[in-house]
Amino acid sequence: MSKADSKGMWGGRFSEATDDFVAAFTASEHYDRRLYRQDIRGSQAHARMLARCGVLSEADATAIIDGLAAIAAEIEAGEFPWDPALEDVHMNIEARLTARIGDAGKRLHTGRSRNDQIATDVRLWLREAIDEATHLLRHFQAGLVNLAEREADTVMPGFTHLQVAQPVSFGHHMLAWYEMLVRDEARLADARVRVNQSPLGSAALAGTTFAIDREQTCAELGFEAPTRNSLDAVSDRDFAIEFVSAAALTMTHLSRMAEELVLWASPLTGFIELPDRFCTGSSIMPQKKNPDVAELVRGKSARVHGALNTLLTLMKGQPLAYNRDNQEDKEPLFDAADALHDSLRAFGDMVPALSVNRERTRQAARAGFATATDLADYLVRKGVPFRDAHAIVGEAVAYGVQHGEDLSDLSLETLQGFSEHIASDVYAVLTVDGSMAARDHLGGTAPAQVHQQVAAARARLAGD
Amino acid sequence: MSKADSKGMWGGRFSEATDDFVAAFTASEHYDRRLYRQDIRGSQAHARMLARCGVLSEADATAIIDGLAAIAAEIEAGEFPWDPALEDVHMNIEARLTARIGDAGKRLHTGRSRNDQIATDVRLWLREAIDEATHLLRHFQAGLVNLAEREADTVMPGFTHLQVAQPVSFGHHMLAWYEMLVRDEARLADARVRVNQSPLGSAALAGTTFAIDREQTCAELGFEAPTRNSLDAVSDRDFAIEFVSAAALTMTHLSRMAEELVLWASPLTGFIELPDRFCTGSSIMPQKKNPDVAELVRGKSARVHGALNTLLTLMKGQPLAYNRDNQEDKEPLFDAADALHDSLRAFGDMVPALSVNRERTRQAARAGFATATDLADYLVRKGVPFRDAHAIVGEAVAYGVQHGEDLSDLSLETLQGFSEHIASDVYAVLTVDGSMAARDHLGGTAPAQVHQQVAAARARLAGD
Amino acid sequence: MSKADSKGMWGGRFSEATDDFVAAFTASEHYDRRLYRQDIRGSQAHARMLARCGVLSEADATAIIDGLAAIAAEIEAGEFPWDPALEDVHMNIEARLTARIGDAGKRLHTGRSRNDQIATDVRLWLREAIDEATHLLRHFQAGLVNLAEREADTVMPGFTHLQVAQPVSFGHHMLAWYEMLVRDEARLADARVRVNQSPLGSAALAGTTFAIDREQTCAELGFEAPTRNSLDAVSDRDFAIEFVSAAALTMTHLSRMAEELVLWASPLTGFIELPDRFCTGSSIMPQKKNPDVAELVRGKSARVHGALNTLLTLMKGQPLAYNRDNQEDKEPLFDAADALHDSLRAFGDMVPALSVNRERTRQAARAGFATATDLADYLVRKGVPFRDAHAIVGEAVAYGVQHGEDLSDLSLETLQGFSEHIASDVYAVLTVDGSMAARDHLGGTAPAQVHQQVAAARARLAGD
Amino acid sequence: MSKADSKGMWGGRFSEATDDFVAAFTASEHYDRRLYRQDIRGSQAHARMLARCGVLSEADATAIIDGLAAIAAEIEAGEFPWDPALEDVHMNIEARLTARIGDAGKRLHTGRSRNDQIATDVRLWLREAIDEATHLLRHFQAGLVNLAEREADTVMPGFTHLQVAQPVSFGHHMLAWYEMLVRDEARLADARVRVNQSPLGSAALAGTTFAIDREQTCAELGFEAPTRNSLDAVSDRDFAIEFVSAAALTMTHLSRMAEELVLWASPLTGFIELPDRFCTGSSIMPQKKNPDVAELVRGKSARVHGALNTLLTLMKGQPLAYNRDNQEDKEPLFDAADALHDSLRAFGDMVPALSVNRERTRQAARAGFATATDLADYLVRKGVPFRDAHAIVGEAVAYGVQHGEDLSDLSLETLQGFSEHIASDVYAVLTVDGSMAARDHLGGTAPAQVHQQVAAARARLAGD
Repeated sequence: MSKADSKGMWGGRFSEATDDFVAAFTASEHYDRRLYRQDIRGSQAHARMLARCGVLSEADATAIIDGLAAIAAEIEAGEFPWDPALEDVHMNIEARLTARIGDAGKRLHTGRSRNDQIATDVRLWLREAIDEATHLLRHFQAGLVNLAEREADTVMPGFTHLQVAQPVSFGHHMLAWYEMLVRDEARLADARVRVNQSPLGSAALAGTTFAIDREQTCAELGFEAPTRNSLDAVSDRDFAIEFVSAAALTMTHLSRMAEELVLWASPLTGFIELPDRFCTGSSIMPQKKNPDVAELVRGKSARVHGALNTLLTLMKGQPLAYNRDNQEDKEPLFDAADALHDSLRAFGDMVPALSVNRERTRQAARAGFATATDLADYLVRKGVPFRDAHAIVGEAVAYGVQHGEDLSDLSLETLQGFSEHIASDVYAVLTVDGSMAARDHLGGTAPAQVHQQVAAARARLAGD
Repeated sequence: MSKADSKGMWGGRFSEATDDFVAAFTASEHYDRRLYRQDIRGSQAHARMLARCGVLSEADATAIIDGLAAIAAEIEAGEFPWDPALEDVHMNIEARLTARIGDAGKRLHTGRSRNDQIATDVRLWLREAIDEATHLLRHFQAGLVNLAEREADTVMPGFTHLQVAQPVSFGHHMLAWYEMLVRDEARLADARVRVNQSPLGSAALAGTTFAIDREQTCAELGFEAPTRNSLDAVSDRDFAIEFVSAAALTMTHLSRMAEELVLWASPLTGFIELPDRFCTGSSIMPQKKNPDVAELVRGKSARVHGALNTLLTLMKGQPLAYNRDNQEDKEPLFDAADALHDSLRAFGDMVPALSVNRERTRQAARAGFATATDLADYLVRKGVPFRDAHAIVGEAVAYGVQHGEDLSDLSLETLQGFSEHIASDVYAVLTVDGSMAARDHLGGTAPAQVHQQVAAARARLAGD
Repeated sequence: MSKADSKGMWGGRFSEATDDFVAAFTASEHYDRRLYRQDIRGSQAHARMLARCGVLSEADATAIIDGLAAIAAEIEAGEFPWDPALEDVHMNIEARLTARIGDAGKRLHTGRSRNDQIATDVRLWLREAIDEATHLLRHFQAGLVNLAEREADTVMPGFTHLQVAQPVSFGHHMLAWYEMLVRDEARLADARVRVNQSPLGSAALAGTTFAIDREQTCAELGFEAPTRNSLDAVSDRDFAIEFVSAAALTMTHLSRMAEELVLWASPLTGFIELPDRFCTGSSIMPQKKNPDVAELVRGKSARVHGALNTLLTLMKGQPLAYNRDNQEDKEPLFDAADALHDSLRAFGDMVPALSVNRERTRQAARAGFATATDLADYLVRKGVPFRDAHAIVGEAVAYGVQHGEDLSDLSLETLQGFSEHIASDVYAVLTVDGSMAARDHLGGTAPAQVHQQVAAARARLAGD
Repeated sequence: MSKADSKGMWGGRFSEATDDFVAAFTASEHYDRRLYRQDIRGSQAHARMLARCGVLSEADATAIIDGLAAIAAEIEAGEFPWDPALEDVHMNIEARLTARIGDAGKRLHTGRSRNDQIATDVRLWLREAIDEATHLLRHFQAGLVNLAEREADTVMPGFTHLQVAQPVSFGHHMLAWYEMLVRDEARLADARVRVNQSPLGSAALAGTTFAIDREQTCAELGFEAPTRNSLDAVSDRDFAIEFVSAAALTMTHLSRMAEELVLWASPLTGFIELPDRFCTGSSIMPQKKNPDVAELVRGKSARVHGALNTLLTLMKGQPLAYNRDNQEDKEPLFDAADALHDSLRAFGDMVPALSVNRERTRQAARAGFATATDLADYLVRKGVPFRDAHAIVGEAVAYGVQHGEDLSDLSLETLQGFSEHIASDVYAVLTVDGSMAARDHLGGTAPAQVHQQVAAARARLAGD
């Protein structure tokens, strides 16, 4: 900051100008300029309110509001003279306003402080970021529902411990992902309520001596209610933390999906093919087609975890009210929102475009004695207590492993050697399709259930 | 685990007994036994449902339900033979049940798996943990409201950057804390909805082949709805993460309060006195009276942050469905809940019992030119643009610093040297009481506003 | 704590006894009793030094040293009357000592404080924990080296992006793991130097007025040097953080190995077989053989990350010198050390006992055009610039994908259609064995290199 | 990326061009261009080695080396045509090289891959970042040593629990900070050894079929040794994590210092004055002089904690060898290094320039019965067992609290009422200067010790 400027902004209290390195170290303009729309909108609402309350003349208010609109246009045209010496987005815009309209500009900051101003700006920005994320979540949800319907009858191995457990419907698996995203959307909706509160008028920390009307700015800016305590309002960053917490959980879900996509796209399984346009190649190995998008999403999830860690750590030691530490909240918040938006968009486009190699998934489902549980359940229906049935099937599987044969390949005679309760009707339960179709209750993997869930999801997505 | 046991539990698939160290390494009974009540309650509901659906005989169901009740009594009496060789709480209880009631016990596990069982147990446990935390939050809130009322007129310095900024009401400061806790309560209420879903009947990962009625167990266990996808239901740990996220934010608030309590209890400020019963002494310095409770709460907040980190990291790399990694979710979850409950209880008891040294807080509020903003606002009301007023007051403060005098100590003549707009009415705005009372709008620090907020908070606390 | 006790320990400064809940909340005896050996050893060294410096009589010192030895025996026999009312391990032992030997016991705490005492205890404990981890690391390293030698010639697919990239030696892969563990050992050795400093004699925060000899206790306890600043010595927890940082990185390595072990043990790849004694089964699916140990290690890595987060967060807001927050350092430290030791032991035993399904790994290496780079390198040797060679091979691979044929299956005529530089000698470079053997330089995957690295590793392991 | 380009770079394997959003999502050029110097230096060394090994002609090597030098000049002049369509710094430079020198440029990538290239670049970059941090650490250390000498005799209160504990020397306190920074420097030196290894020649993951000489590039680039395993070398990011771990601990130290600086600069204590050039003002409160630099450093420490969390999480789930997740390592690494460098520079300049208000610190040291331990020690020297002495002094303090008198203000008669062992020589130990001077042993706070430590620190700083 130029020596003159810093003295100018803070008045005569200082006997020495700011050190140049310190000025650069403390400036935030290079990233908080991203809030210019919100800053201008908030200032316009503030000026309008001051005028209506008689603190500002109508003429001054009009000059301010019009001047700010002109500045917004300047910024959008790329013609605004951003100056790091003016510290932040607020001072850049206010200084420009005063340069354009004179003394009226100097009256804008009446009855507020940068402390409530930045809290207002970030809340407005975050409200939009939540709405964008919600839109992207629903887009991805809709794509998954379509994919689930398309692959409702596709048999794939269901895993626990990455061991083949039971056959499941590929569509059912896609709906598991859908469920995660439904919770994610709900969490954002809950967070939005707490984000959407108006701190404007809390001033530096204690409110102001002017007879302001906080309800008016609140309504004009589309907030649900004014915050109720000025000390809290200027120091609170719960809204940022809560959003990043929700984002971290969504990214955790995307990372889990990525883990599966990378595995399924590997020649080790060959379960799916990703469109070339979502993949990249290698600079040295000409045969490679890499699932980079999935890997980057997995990587970006780590980044959002880190941002959450930063924000929680940032706040935990701070006494009331505003401390400069808070300035460090913006970069992690912006970074988390960008990672979330980009990752949702990438997966929302890519995942519904994957194709399933149904032969490979079916083959894999047949490979690991996946219908062993069905045999145990069969025995239970014949009256064998479950624990005994479990032990009997264990013996049969051990025999199959030893002889390299699946349960459905064993002769009736062999099977009856394990339990006298086994009859020829047993083979119906030992097929992967039969096994899958038999889990026909709410939440089960039967294709009939998948279609019901698809219908319910479609109704939900159409509902709002 | 004894060789016989491990072969017994998993059936004939294994040709070799578990290594002793591995058995100890994989066992969870020493911490998950804490879930015994939930496990038994869930098993009773499952048995009752199986009987109603015709999968289990009424006689078997009755034997199971009564047997489990007897086991619960055994555990509460400290007479249950916990056996780490049986891995976990589920197997301990089931084995004991079979020992008591014979074959019926072996039928209990029909149509479910430990995967949906543990998810059910933890959700039931967590629902209670949330309710307990909510109760403690409200207790603490009520204490803060009383304290706020008592100290509504008490002047203290409001800080930004730990520099004296403006005079505020001590009661107003307490209400800032109250607001944090109100948000914390809302977050827990939101999380509770997603916790309170029934995964029971999802079985291992795909549902079961038995014609079960998931709505029935859901209703009996007081859940809001059954989960809709079995793969998701057994692998989802969002509920734990969401609770710990909320806990981490609450603990962050308590840590911020702790930061202030430690400072205020220090002879450096002498703002408050904590009752002796909440303090401890030193083994070497006889004069010490340490605010240990506040420091430990501050320390425990770090612990809950760590638990959140653990849970997010634990989940992010897991493909569907259940993996054994998930077993590691319980200790951080339990630890976070314990830290939250204990810290809320400690502060809920201690904070309302503090006494304020009103002379010290008033004295400190007078020390840092805390009414400088009031002088600037005064000039604005005289027609000076805010930025110019700010500069004028800066000069006056610089003069005061140099001469060791507060603004209110300067003569009218001296003040008028800085601005001709200053008249003798200026001294009214330069007192700390006048300054505080003048911030008399929604959210402001005026005692009148504090009393209004106290009334609103009391109504809210009485409301449910 | 009983009312009498708390007054007794802190003297007459307090007018009110500690609240019961607060006493339980602040007590640490239930976990810090684990430090009893270190605490006693440190106290014996302190007493011996005090006597040699003339602060304590020889008779008192002897009574103390013998009394402490008797107490150690009591504890090891399980006969020590641990009392949570006495707060921590230090006070439990000191009170017992005084009960046994009278006034001499009351003289032990001369010239020290619990602040330097606990720092001494934890450093002594951590030094042992590091040595134990080092021992386990070397045991695991030796096992990997043996396995690497056994499987030096085993071909497996090398992956990038989980796509088949180039054939590699299974032994080479094991040596990659070995390299990680070598770095881990070096980091622990570096940390040990900073752990192994003696804070004893720093007293509460400023040193003591007695003419103590800190060099003597330092030497007797096997520390490298006394710390140089008392304020730092009682408040520093770098040693714990640095150890947990190193542990977090080691656990990250084990987690990466776990990721591969789980994949390789899956029927999806069938690359390896884990001995039954390291696996567990399913309560519902009789066919399952789950790689639980690997999954739990992966889960425990999240836990150690969380512990690191806790410790860093714990310290970052603390002013000098000792604050009670520090008490919360022990549980994460103990937990991280336990997780590290157990995981290293589990893998050190299990991994060298795995068996490789060499047919499966060879088959998989042949599946993904793994020798495409070899063809490109072949062309380069014929004079084609690398980038052009890369493009040519890309065309050939696209042709192979389309026709379902590996490069080595294409006729010479077909291959020459892509480049005139290809001659019949090309087939030698298109075999997986040829490809592997050709990377025969320091660090390359050629079996010859693997054997050289095995020899070097053996020499290193024998060296100290 | 333009459609033509992406097909061009990866050859004929792809049938579809990259999606535009995906191209932007996967590009890294906007941040990894920061590595251009290292990338060029590594490529030059690689080309020189290839020529010496006969893989490249001398003419080609010369063209490459000169071409790269010209490109470096272009970049430094701001004239390089960075193109995000070319993905990253490597491809941008290589494409430019080929554009300038033709086919020789296409030969540069022979025998290497972007996987070993980026590992080399980052290690070279990080080695410099460590050296810069070391330089800044030593600069700050030297400043603290000067300050310690200047304020060796300045009495201030030493705190535990933010309660006044015992008088300490301000210089002693500064040396506590110095000790932290000495450990930080040692950790960086240890990490540097593991950073400074050459992965070049590991190629994609398995080494190369060309007869390269890795020792030569290692030596030319100033690395200590080549890495020993190609799979490990391309996937290892320990070096980044270890550096960020060390940075996180250093930032934790700076955060602790910040906590104290903010407190000491507050009018609550008035212990120090920070030069105006390191402070900023308020937009609304003209009297404010805020310690923003300290607060921002405290905030930035949270950011580095987050970066560490990100990096650990990023790596923990990755199978060997290179995965695209790794691309996400650079931004947190760069950000952590920048935060570390900037914060060290800011404190290294600011802290030594602070001035101490010696009257205020002395006054505060007298306020909290800070010499109570000295009285206890006095009694011990008269033969009273320490625990009894502690209790006696506790009674005296309680009396002092009740009567508002310090121990040194009590009459001899009053003091003797607490113990008959007290004589008139007691007053010598009850002064703050006497108390401070009496802790005269290694590490103690006596000014004599401070001067000795200053001399030792100066010798150490001069030593290398």
